[in-house]
Parts: sequence; structure tokens; C-alpha cells
Amino acid sequence: MPRLMLNADMGESFGPWKMGTDHELMKVVDLANVACGFHASDPDTIRATVRLAASHGVTVGAHPAYPDLVGFGRRSMACSSEEIENMLLYQAGALAALCRAEGARMGYVKPHGALYNDMMRDRETLSAVMRALAMLDADLPLMVMATRDTSMAEELAEEHGVTLWREAFADRAYDAEGRLVSRREPGAVHHDAETIIDQARRIASGLPLTASDGSDLVLSADTLCVHGDNPESIAAIRAIRESLDDVERRA
Amino acid sequence: MPRLMLNADMGESFGPWKMGTDHELMKVVDLANVACGFHASDPDTIRATVRLAASHGVTVGAHPAYPDLVGFGRRSMACSSEEIENMLLYQAGALAALCRAEGARMGYVKPHGALYNDMMRDRETLSAVMRALAMLDADLPLMVMATRDTSMAEELAEEHGVTLWREAFADRAYDAEGRLVSRREPGAVHHDAETIIDQARRIASGLPLTASDGSDLVLSADTLCVHGDNPESIAAIRAIRESLDDVERRA
Amino acid sequence: MPRLMLNADMGESFGPWKMGTDHELMKVVDLANVACGFHASDPDTIRATVRLAASHGVTVGAHPAYPDLVGFGRRSMACSSEEIENMLLYQAGALAALCRAEGARMGYVKPHGALYNDMMRDRETLSAVMRALAMLDADLPLMVMATRDTSMAEELAEEHGVTLWREAFADRAYDAEGRLVSRREPGAVHHDAETIIDQARRIASGLPLTASDGSDLVLSADTLCVHGDNPESIAAIRAIRESLDDVERRA
Amino acid sequence: MPRLMLNADMGESFGPWKMGTDHELMKVVDLANVACGFHASDPDTIRATVRLAASHGVTVGAHPAYPDLVGFGRRSMACSSEEIENMLLYQAGALAALCRAEGARMGYVKPHGALYNDMMRDRETLSAVMRALAMLDADLPLMVMATRDTSMAEELAEEHGVTLWREAFADRAYDAEGRLVSRREPGAVHHDAETIIDQARRIASGLPLTASDGSDLVLSADTLCVHGDNPESIAAIRAIRESLDDVERRA
Repeated sequence: MPRLMLNADMGESFGPWKMGTDHELMKVVDLANVACGFHASDPDTIRATVRLAASHGVTVGAHPAYPDLVGFGRRSMACSSEEIENMLLYQAGALAALCRAEGARMGYVKPHGALYNDMMRDRETLSAVMRALAMLDADLPLMVMATRDTSMAEELAEEHGVTLWREAFADRAYDAEGRLVSRREPGAVHHDAETIIDQARRIASGLPLTASDGSDLVLSADTLCVHGDNPESIAAIRAIRESLDDVERRA
Repeated sequence: MPRLMLNADMGESFGPWKMGTDHELMKVVDLANVACGFHASDPDTIRATVRLAASHGVTVGAHPAYPDLVGFGRRSMACSSEEIENMLLYQAGALAALCRAEGARMGYVKPHGALYNDMMRDRETLSAVMRALAMLDADLPLMVMATRDTSMAEELAEEHGVTLWREAFADRAYDAEGRLVSRREPGAVHHDAETIIDQARRIASGLPLTASDGSDLVLSADTLCVHGDNPESIAAIRAIRESLDDVERRA
Repeated sequence: MPRLMLNADMGESFGPWKMGTDHELMKVVDLANVACGFHASDPDTIRATVRLAASHGVTVGAHPAYPDLVGFGRRSMACSSEEIENMLLYQAGALAALCRAEGARMGYVKPHGALYNDMMRDRETLSAVMRALAMLDADLPLMVMATRDTSMAEELAEEHGVTLWREAFADRAYDAEGRLVSRREPGAVHHDAETIIDQARRIASGLPLTASDGSDLVLSADTLCVHGDNPESIAAIRAIRESLDDVERRA
Repeated sequence: MPRLMLNADMGESFGPWKMGTDHELMKVVDLANVACGFHASDPDTIRATVRLAASHGVTVGAHPAYPDLVGFGRRSMACSSEEIENMLLYQAGALAALCRAEGARMGYVKPHGALYNDMMRDRETLSAVMRALAMLDADLPLMVMATRDTSMAEELAEEHGVTLWREAFADRAYDAEGRLVSRREPGAVHHDAETIIDQARRIASGLPLTASDGSDLVLSADTLCVHGDNPESIAAIRAIRESLDDVERRA
């Protein structure tokens, strides 16, 4: 059983505006999803984030988005497949150059926000993302959502020769299809440390979670998405990491 | 004597706005300076321009600029060395990825507009540009202005291990230092085809031009900057190319 | 019967990029929908456009849009009501100030592109637009699409105390509901001058059009949207204007 | 002796990024310089800031800037007079509309950052700013720097019919000309509360400060610029306000 990697969004500052706790997060994750300038970040912020990642041995991934700074890439935009393909190439290429300047290497791609959601829901969008990846570097994994049925993503990945990294969430409730329960629903977000760690261990071990309708849900995941908004969440990530290390040692 | 290459700015459309005559220009130049999204262009425009260049065997160069779309990168901005270094890496990296998607290769870098002018005048700016280039790809030539005394650029190029491509102009008057006479001065721009072709041939042959103060000016140049704003200018470029081919055959 | 006003989009240049034939269009229309900087235009372009309108006695309207320059405001964005309300106030206020500098007055508001389409389809979006208008200046008419059933717009207009100007198209086919037939359908756009002028006269006279399913369609319209992309279309607008003047003289 | 008003920069958040302590600052100042979207802020942020100001009886001023979000308007840009005039009209007009939506009124204009510095140094820039103001609303005061010799500003203000509000700083050292000592110099910024309050009282009372060369410097000021970056600075502003109230009671 391979190690379940922890990934987190980073490099989300922009110009004079600071966001996130990258210096703390870098100590506790494996993968840094670095904003590429379309929803957050700028060339200086990217550079500094890549340098920080390199100094902690954290792998940098591109975190491309719709061109919407003021909306932080969270608003879906009716872009064409060609626009999506090219905006991905542009953003990933920019990040790759700033990685090279720091002696680092861009290790994967994870679309951000509304683009991520749209790609999980729309075959044409996901195809555009994969075309971009395949042209950029066929060895670059694409991070996608681990759901009950990932056949669409797998089929397209096979077609485009792209590797998938499936990500799951330890602090979110799932529905029977393995989609996240909307934050507007009660119980959508787990706040209890024990619940979160238990969910992380189950995902790492291939044990079923209990979906929102009570059914069993088994998710196959390569990575766990974590957030480091404050000291408490950093501590929670440490606890998850330790618990996962324990799972891995036993395996 | 190596061939004097012709270079022209391209890919200067933006979103729905069209600019330039790239389809005609591609037929008559060797090098396409492709805008990278900060002063003009967007991912779709870059992709289409690179594809067009590749189909004509034209080498694509990055044409990075200050972040100023509305001002077309023509307004000097008081950016720090670090900002300049990183904006160059970002833009060149983005272009390189879109080149790769078309099976092409980014062949050189030529800063645009106010950034070009600032780098020719300010040692710190030029150093920042060269640092970016050296980190990106030490084999990537940097296009700089051919003037009487290019010792500053040569010294820095040696220090950073960067190759220089010096560019000259066939349709502009020069002062005694080999700087372009300001467009606000009378006689700054040559409009007569014979004068332009004569100046191109002199530059290609290493023969002296007559500077604005009447002194002789010898410019060592690798490339000639041309503009293709209308059918007349495309015809002029053809005439220059034919005349230079003639110079080269005789050499 | 009041005069059927002709309206056209203008001020759609951006920085160095030119678009449109505003100098010709201003001679033949009554209303100029002036871009406000979010999908096109910039402060200098707005100022020049307003000056041109004022010199021709053309009324200036605000043409606000989603914040999407590269997509020209044509891509729907998932914005909240509050975001729409505030982006409208921002854009219309900016235009109003540039009008004042030219001794002109902003005379109405017509949302642009995807925002216009979204507002005609979505009650919440239209409410947000009307709230902005009512707060800005209750006397400012809002241009909306003339369809068979405009009860939603009328009801909201009454609620917010907003005046509606309904616009129709002389060169587009309509379906039975009075919506434009999609440009992807055959026959969606009329190219024949006689057909266009006949449709304009019918709209001006309150006579029925023939919808795409063969049914009669009566549209109540205050203004006709025209486009001036080339000399032919300018000539067509002149012909429409003359024909409408003739209708009005007879009435 | 009129009350020395306290002014502070506000509304400097942008999209998802928060900046400043506006909720605390609003309790202790008279004037809120509200960013207009070119260096910071967005329509939603402006609206919320104006609402907050109105609820505290604080006067809102426009804080227009060069179009440079990533650089926060701190980088000088080589803009033409016409560009400066029009970008001022655009930004102030946008703010005025959002003020109207909250039943408030834009009360003055204070250019931001590099634009402010450029206008204090360059007659042409200051003229452009004043032309914009005079066209927008001749009753709108312009905030300028109080220096030893303000004759250039006064002369232009008279010419354009513009009212000046001169601002001074309690926490910065001045040179003999009444310009701020550069932050790169030792002693440029006062950190001691007693020194700051003493300087505020001297400015309010018309008593001389000691310039960096030891000479006496009398500044005529209408307003004092304060910053509220943290709880300590908010406390300092309260202390200044109380001390100034004491000066005013005695006068």
C-alpha cells in the first residue's frame, strides 16, 4: 500500500495581499498546489513558494484556474474547450519556468476551484485538461476527485495517456456517489479531530466510509487534501500524518 | 558572414481584438517575437501564432513585457529587479509550454517596449533580464539593441553566460552613439524604399551608416527589426529580404 | 406612435486595439451603448466615445458587463446578485463621470453580452440589475429584450420603479416566444436588405412578424439594435432609418 | 483654528484578500480614503467600506491610483496627462455611484501611492488631477502634501478653482523643505508615542517642527494621515485624537 500523500493549496497570496500559512503548511504536507496567477499568485509569489517547497522537499504542482482574480477562480465561466486547454498550458508553463529557476520540477497538475468542479462534472472540460497535460508532459499526473465511480476520468486518462492521482477529503462528508456533501447541508464538514483522523485512516486502509445516506463508500485515493488556515488546522494535519504513518507501518 | 535575420513583433492580438498582419509577416521573416500575455496576446492567440510560425519554419521568440495591457507595455514602470526577473520567467515559461504543444521550441527572448528601452539604459534591469534567461535556458539568445558601444551588454552577457543577438533598424535614423533618433525629431523614420534598402545592405555588409550628426556609424548586427503594419510594409520587407540575399550571395 | 430609436454598441476599443466604426455609426443612430471597461473600453476610449456621441447629439448609455476582457463579456460567469448589483453601479458610475467631463449625461443602461442574456433568463439577475439602477438614478431607463411575454421584466420594473426600453432586432429571426433564433440554426440571421427593412417597419408599426414556427409574433419595441461592422452595415442602418422615418411620417 | 481631521487609507481588500483594520479605523478617523479598484478594492469591497463609513459618520474620499493591482499602485508609471485625467474621472465616478447606493456622498479626492508622489513632484501630473476634479465637481477638495512651499499646488488650485486640503504626518520625520525623510534613512519614522503626539499637537497648533537638518519647519495642515495596521496603531490614533481635541478646546 503506497503512502497516502497530503496535498494543500499554497502560493495564494497576490501582490501586497497575504493569504495562507504556507510556512507552516510546508512542514506537514507532501504536495503543494501552487496558484499560477489566474486566480491568485503572481510571479514573485510563485517563485517564493517554489523556493519554500524545494527547501522542505515538498513536490510542487500547478494549480491552474479560470482567469478570475477578484472571484478567486471560484465562479464557473463558460469557456470553450480550446480556451481551457490553452489556459492550462499557459499557467503550467509559467509555473514550470519558475520551478526551474529554483532547481525544482513541476510534479503534477491540479485544477483549481470552479475549473476543478467543472472538469469533474463535464467530460469535455476534463478532456481539454487532459489534452493540455499530455502535450505538456505525458508523465505529469493529474489530480482528480476520488468518487465511487471514476470510470469517466479513467477512460479519458487511458485515452490521453495521463496518470491520475485521486484525492479524498478527511474532513468532509460524502454522499453515496462519493461526492462531497454541499457545505450548505448540516454535517457537511467534520470538525471533530477523532472523526477526521478516523476518516483519514479508513481512506488510507481501503476501509469503507459511511456515506450521508448510511451506505458504505469505499474510496480509492492517492492523496488527501488538507487545509492550513490556522494553527489548529496545522495541528490537525500533523495528527493525520502521524496516524497515517502508523497505518503505513502496520501495513 | 552569417545571414542577417529579419525579426518582427507578432501575436499582438488580445481576446476579440485583432492587431497586425501575422499571416503575411510569417511569409517574410525569420524570427517572430511573440507577445506573452502581459502587454498583448492571450493563451489562444499565442497558440495560434506559434502554430502559424511553425508552419512557416519561423523561429518563435518570447516577447515579455511589463504587466500593462491597456498601455501595451509602452509605459515604463518602476519595477524591482526581482519583479523583472520573475515576470520574465513567468512569461517565457508560458510561451515555452504553448510552443511545446505545437511541437515548436522557444528560440530566443526579446523584451518588449518600455522594458526593452529600460534594459538598454539601465544595467540593473539588463542584469535581471539576463539572470532570468540564464536560469531558464543558458542556450537562449537575448535580443538587444545594436549600438556603437555594446560593452555593457557584452560584459553582462559574459558574466551570465548569455548569448546576444544584436538588432538593428533599416528604417530609422541613428545618432552618433548608435541610438535611434526620437520619433519626435524630423527625419527619424525613413519612408523612402531606396534609403531603407541601402541601410539594410550597409548593416548586413558592415559598412558605415551616416549618423544624424554626419559621423560614420558602424553597427554589428545579427538581426533586423521589421514591421508589417500594411501591404506596403510587407512589400518593403520582401525587398529588404531580396536585397540581403543578394548581399549574402556576393559575400 | 413614438419614434423607434436605433441603438448600437460603441466604445469597444481597448488600449491600443481598435474595434468598430464608431465615427460612422454615430451619424446614423440615436443611442450609443458605451462599454465601461469590464469587457471592453478604458477611460480614454470612453471619454473619446462620449465626446463623439455628444458632438452628434447621440444619447450615451452605459453598457456594463461581467469582468472578462479577454472573453469580451460573452462568457457567462456565476456571479452573486450582490456582485452583479455592485459591478453595475461601479461601471455606470465610471461612465457617468466621464459623461459629465464632456458636458453629457448618461441616458440609460443596457447590460452587455452574457450579462444581458443571463438577466433575460434569470429573475434574480434582473432584480440585481434593477436594484442597481434604482439606486443610481430612478429616471434611468433599462434596455431589455422585447419578447412575446415581458411580464417578468415589467413586474420587476414596477417593483423597483424602473422604466423599460424594449429592444428588437430587424436582422434576426425570432421563435414563437419572441426569443432570437440561435445563430447556429439556419435562417437565424437575415442578410437580405428588403427582409431587414420589412421587419424594421413591422416592428415600428406594431404589425406581426412571422416567427420560426410560422406563428404571428407582435413585439412592442422602443428601440432597434443595429450593428455597424462595415460600410455595408452602415448603409443598411441608413436605409432602416429612412424607412422608419417614412413609417413615422405616415403615422 | 479648525479641527485637524484624521484621514486613513481604507477599502484596501481585494476579492478574497483582506487588508487593514477598517472596522477599528472607522471609529477613530474623520476621513476614509477609499481605494477605487485600480490598486486595490473591488465593487463589493467599495460598497461595504462606504456603508461602514456612513454608519460611523466618516466622510468618504476617492483614493484613485495607477492601474497596477499587483504592485498596489506603488510603482510609478509613465502615463500621459490625458490618461491620468481620465483614470481619475473613471475611478472617482465609480466610487461616487457606490456612495450614492449607500446614501453617502463622495467628499474629496486623494490620489494614492506613486500617483500621489508623482503629482507632488510634477506640475503636469498635478494639473491633470485638478482638471479631472474641476470637471467632476468643483466643490470636491483635493488632498495634497503639506510642505514648506506649496505655491505650485496653490497656483494650480486657483487656476482650476479647486480647494486644497493639505495633509501632514505625525509619525514621520521631515526635511527642511517639508518633504518626508525617506524610509531608508535612520530616524525617518517615529515610533515613540510621545514624539508622535507632540508632532501632531505642533502641527495642529501651527508651532514649528524640527526638520532633519535642525531647522524650524512650520506646516499648515488641514488633516493628519494615520495608519491602522494593528491594535497598537489604533490606540496611537486614539491618543492623537484626544490630544488634538485638547489642543482645540484650549484654542
